[in-house]
Amino acid sequence: MAARMVRIAEIEIDPAQLDVYRALLSEEIEASVAWEPGVLMLHAVAERDRPECIRILEVYADRAAYEAHLTTPHFLSYKEATAGMVRSLRLVDVDPVMMRGK
Amino acid sequence: MAARMVRIAEIEIDPAQLDVYRALLSEEIEASVAWEPGVLMLHAVAERDRPECIRILEVYADRAAYEAHLTTPHFLSYKEATAGMVRSLRLVDVDPVMMRGK
Repeated sequence: MAARMVRIAEIEIDPAQLDVYRALLSEEIEASVAWEPGVLMLHAVAERDRPECIRILEVYADRAAYEAHLTTPHFLSYKEATAGMVRSLRLVDVDPVMMRGK
Repeated sequence: MAARMVRIAEIEIDPAQLDVYRALLSEEIEASVAWEPGVLMLHAVAERDRPECIRILEVYADRAAYEAHLTTPHFLSYKEATAGMVRSLRLVDVDPVMMRGK
């Protein structure tokens, strides 16, 4: 079995475009988890004290699932629509220690 | 309905004690999600390039559920056992943007 791919994206958004960005991100997450079998989890949160700082915990079935995700129409559409809203993007590779939810 | 409480804990561990810390954290997470109705999600990951840096995405049903969690035997036992392993602890309050998983 291929290893799951887990990552945290840290994204800083232009505050003037934050509402639109949040709506586009939300659509992209809903579409990805609903339609792509290999997208297992996308949890996006905003820092309370710096709401323009978004963090996303991403879990893909494996690297192939991630690479397939990058070619989907909903991801490409999100990427293009938000390109002018993103001030910085940092991708942090992580490994699961223990992940549990109800 | 009370608001969910969502947070990210950023914890740096003494590397010499990392294996023990990871085992204790894993036990604590399993017990919390299994036994506490108000602990909805605990996802702990380690940065790949700095494995002593642990991040936990925590979701509680509400603040009361979180406060109850702090009084449970499994949490108190974890807290006491790991006190000498934790070099720093930063708690980041966050708000959900969109959280989806399978």
